[in-house]
Amino acid sequence: MIGTMSELISVSQAEALIAEHMPTFGSERVRLDDAAGRVLRQAVHAEHDHPPFDRVMMDGIATHWSDALPRRLRVAGAQMAGMRMQSLPGEGSCLEVTTGAMLPAGSDCVIPVEQLRRDGDDVVLADDCHPFAGQFIHRRGSDCVQGTLLLSPGMRLGPAEMALLAANGVASVEVAAMPSIAIVSTGDELVDVGAPLGEGQIRRSNDTAVRTALRMDGFDRVAMEHIVDDETATRERIAHLLERHDVLLLSGGVSMGQRDYVPAALAAQGVRKVFHRIAQKPGKPMWFGIGPRGQAVFALPGNPVSALVCATRYARPALRQAQGMARPAPEYVCLDQDVDTNPTLASFVPARVESDAMGRLVAYPVPSRTSGDFSSLPRTHGFVQLPPGPGRATAGAAAVFYRW
Amino acid sequence: MIGTMSELISVSQAEALIAEHMPTFGSERVRLDDAAGRVLRQAVHAEHDHPPFDRVMMDGIATHWSDALPRRLRVAGAQMAGMRMQSLPGEGSCLEVTTGAMLPAGSDCVIPVEQLRRDGDDVVLADDCHPFAGQFIHRRGSDCVQGTLLLSPGMRLGPAEMALLAANGVASVEVAAMPSIAIVSTGDELVDVGAPLGEGQIRRSNDTAVRTALRMDGFDRVAMEHIVDDETATRERIAHLLERHDVLLLSGGVSMGQRDYVPAALAAQGVRKVFHRIAQKPGKPMWFGIGPRGQAVFALPGNPVSALVCATRYARPALRQAQGMARPAPEYVCLDQDVDTNPTLASFVPARVESDAMGRLVAYPVPSRTSGDFSSLPRTHGFVQLPPGPGRATAGAAAVFYRW
Repeated sequence: MIGTMSELISVSQAEALIAEHMPTFGSERVRLDDAAGRVLRQAVHAEHDHPPFDRVMMDGIATHWSDALPRRLRVAGAQMAGMRMQSLPGEGSCLEVTTGAMLPAGSDCVIPVEQLRRDGDDVVLADDCHPFAGQFIHRRGSDCVQGTLLLSPGMRLGPAEMALLAANGVASVEVAAMPSIAIVSTGDELVDVGAPLGEGQIRRSNDTAVRTALRMDGFDRVAMEHIVDDETATRERIAHLLERHDVLLLSGGVSMGQRDYVPAALAAQGVRKVFHRIAQKPGKPMWFGIGPRGQAVFALPGNPVSALVCATRYARPALRQAQGMARPAPEYVCLDQDVDTNPTLASFVPARVESDAMGRLVAYPVPSRTSGDFSSLPRTHGFVQLPPGPGRATAGAAAVFYRW
Repeated sequence: MIGTMSELISVSQAEALIAEHMPTFGSERVRLDDAAGRVLRQAVHAEHDHPPFDRVMMDGIATHWSDALPRRLRVAGAQMAGMRMQSLPGEGSCLEVTTGAMLPAGSDCVIPVEQLRRDGDDVVLADDCHPFAGQFIHRRGSDCVQGTLLLSPGMRLGPAEMALLAANGVASVEVAAMPSIAIVSTGDELVDVGAPLGEGQIRRSNDTAVRTALRMDGFDRVAMEHIVDDETATRERIAHLLERHDVLLLSGGVSMGQRDYVPAALAAQGVRKVFHRIAQKPGKPMWFGIGPRGQAVFALPGNPVSALVCATRYARPALRQAQGMARPAPEYVCLDQDVDTNPTLASFVPARVESDAMGRLVAYPVPSRTSGDFSSLPRTHGFVQLPPGPGRATAGAAAVFYRW
């Protein structure tokens, strides 16, 4: 029953060890419709010049400008958006044009409809209309020329990136493959959300929290499983899960009680411990290992705040890295008040953040009473990380912030 | 062919008019599994005290503390997590306990396994173990008591909120209903992403951009439709779409060219214009109206930058409001450099943002050459809004930021 204390590693050591051992998930080709939010794994170049032709920028008419441009022009036809290129028949004439149309051959000046009056087959320029050559023409290739690098591997496909893919004819696109993830809870005291609650029982909630966090990053191949405190069942289920999934996220069960069958079950399947216990509060018992096929196994502490902090601080960034996503820049906040630090442990302090009118992001700590107290978390946006050290972090000091 | 200029309204007028006219989308009950990311439409109270019993916080033993606590205790049994409450048989004894177990009746002190040595049926306290009454016990109701308000309507269900729902037995939950949204593009020049590109044609991309933006807010009941430049077809399709959807997001087609059949088709179906044209750049031609059943119709300008800016600035916040979501606090940034403003129009300037080590969010403008140029948008995170006025916004000044 005596346990041995593993040596504590620092937060940055834990981060580096995870980064070093994480597999990469490979890539797959998906239809553009299914690519929103995915991580790009190819370069994308301009399919053609943008715009691909001299493009009319206003509804109105196109004509050939000269010093002696008459104030009355004969409308010789129309060049609508989507039409092949028309030609201006000659001096003193114009073609009606719409926004997005090709500039008709022979014309070099677009006059907007607001500056024109229609008179039979003619248009008459308004008195205050003083057109010049080249006006309201969006020149071919002026945004970018064919072959320009538009998107690089590692970008997440948001609205602008998706628009560029569509505009450049990328009907199917190479994106990071979705890992298959299992979220595993253990413990006989845990009851399903819909079941009656008996004496000594509480409801499972860490699995729901972690799944929601993963969904917000777009991870949708997520299975959930509960394992009862039984040695044989634990061994069988862990073996089964390691066969079918790329990533296991365990909640609880990797401590030192004699009913914690998970460590032995993982070892029996060849999962190698990379580290156990981080010098941090909450979340000290965090465990990380790698399976024989490169499966990543995160064993999160069982307390709700600890589990969510560790999933946010370690698992989500590791999964994004394994998808080849570019590492986001850290987000800094200013502390609104003094916060006590721990002499030897990094502190993760849940906080609400609000932008002040100077552009500073201010963090208002919302300390929880215990690492099991998650009832105050909905009033927070994430947590600040404070380094270990004596005394306190003072109001106004900057700290790195991690969003849920 | 003469057009009349509608009077321009300000950005804040446009925002207020949309807010005033938007319908509310009602609510629906979904299984907890399907609630991640949805907007909560009910209050949630604590189902029971948290924790629901005096809870053991460490693996180890539980005993009754006294001044004269012996250093050797007989292990009389075990109180595992999930078990009904056991009783301590008497002085000089203890029960083995695991994290999460009920505190056994008669005990008031938990001693962690790390401070114990097992010796046959006994445990011996380590020399440096100095226990005290109440240690490592998470008292019933100390996080919150039964009936405490935990979640309020209008919250978005992220990881912490979902965990609280699960922990409090909310197996099905009232959330905002998902509106049915149609994204409609118009224009004969627009070709599908997978089709060959003919002379005078470009590929459709605004519909993809807008759909991606909506998906990132969780809106997934989104249909996409392209309408060709034909009066009858436009009228029929608009009538059909207004029957089936709560929201129409049109891209292009609400300007003043004679081939713009959309305004007449909307009017014929009883869609009332609320405003047309906003004093802003880009996106001035933005149009908004309300249908006879309260359908919201946003007509976004056709240029890619304008369409995405208007979807982000107006449509997404309006849809969130219509779901009953609490209005998020504005996000302020500091400008990295002087930026020219327009004397009469609000400016929306795409920018990259990065947090500096002081906790300030600094905006680095990435101006596009034209409102059609979206090739630089992937290097940005959103746009700053600068009020109209002569001169320029100076480096270091604060501005409101909107994320894509």
